[in-house]
Amino acid sequence: MIRSAAPEDTRTIGQLIRALADYEKLSQVVQLDENRLREHLFGPRPYAEVLLAEEDEWRKPLPPLQSGYDLRTSVVGFALFFHNYSTFLGTPGIYLEDLFVWPESRRHGHGKALLAALARLAIDRGCSRLEWAVLDWNTPAMDFYRSLGAVPMDDWTTYRLTGDALASLAD
Amino acid sequence: MIRSAAPEDTRTIGQLIRALADYEKLSQVVQLDENRLREHLFGPRPYAEVLLAEEDEWRKPLPPLQSGYDLRTSVVGFALFFHNYSTFLGTPGIYLEDLFVWPESRRHGHGKALLAALARLAIDRGCSRLEWAVLDWNTPAMDFYRSLGAVPMDDWTTYRLTGDALASLAD
Repeated sequence: MIRSAAPEDTRTIGQLIRALADYEKLSQVVQLDENRLREHLFGPRPYAEVLLAEEDEWRKPLPPLQSGYDLRTSVVGFALFFHNYSTFLGTPGIYLEDLFVWPESRRHGHGKALLAALARLAIDRGCSRLEWAVLDWNTPAMDFYRSLGAVPMDDWTTYRLTGDALASLAD
Repeated sequence: MIRSAAPEDTRTIGQLIRALADYEKLSQVVQLDENRLREHLFGPRPYAEVLLAEEDEWRKPLPPLQSGYDLRTSVVGFALFFHNYSTFLGTPGIYLEDLFVWPESRRHGHGKALLAALARLAIDRGCSRLEWAVLDWNTPAMDFYRSLGAVPMDDWTTYRLTGDALASLAD
């Protein structure tokens, strides 16, 4: 059901990333290059790891959407993650950057299976926390996360420096 | 002024982490072990990196506080960070976990110098983003971050799974 991704899954992972961006109404920021993604996931300095959820039967190809999904695969969802680090707890943690299950394969437990596999991985690797961010309008996701015992970090706000402001500070 | 930390700075870094936790009213969660910290920062699998801000003159030892700071050092502040990864941008980023300057050394530009060094590092390493989280009551920090062009990610909330809830999901 859940397995680690391999380099030959790169195209599938790229499609899932595009589909997640569509779902989050953020497709306009996607700058995905398949070769670079392969390098970043499976090269000598990997920046992230990926778990895949698979079904026994191959998924019917989706009609071409905005980003042109045309993939025929048994993969129905993915979790992309990397390690963060808590100085207060003195342990690494796992940060889940992306979690996505194809709409037609939802409510089959794939999302929960991916999160459970990550929780096991966290404990096996001595991590105290599993964390991720959710868009405030995504109430189905938030209800799901709360049902698993996850707690919203309401008193923290993330700040981001990017583009010209980042370049200007660097000068 | 700004330099990378070395293993012999571990004790100083530990004191700075404790002082930051005091400032954030989170000392009760700190489980810091100096040997483990050294291993996590400078061992074979480093989870984070540290930049230190130094002054020419050694800082007077502080009176012993809640956590017993008693360090005499030229180090007046630190930035502890690791890499994250944006699938949408297809690039790594830098996540700043901790930023702290001793109260008596503030308003001398050390915080900005640490952030500027991180911004340079981000650009040198092909990172598109520098990100961090701030407690909502910490308005001096937020004003400072906004003055640098950082943007609050107001529409995202971080969820955290830890302790029993994490263990229960892993089962």
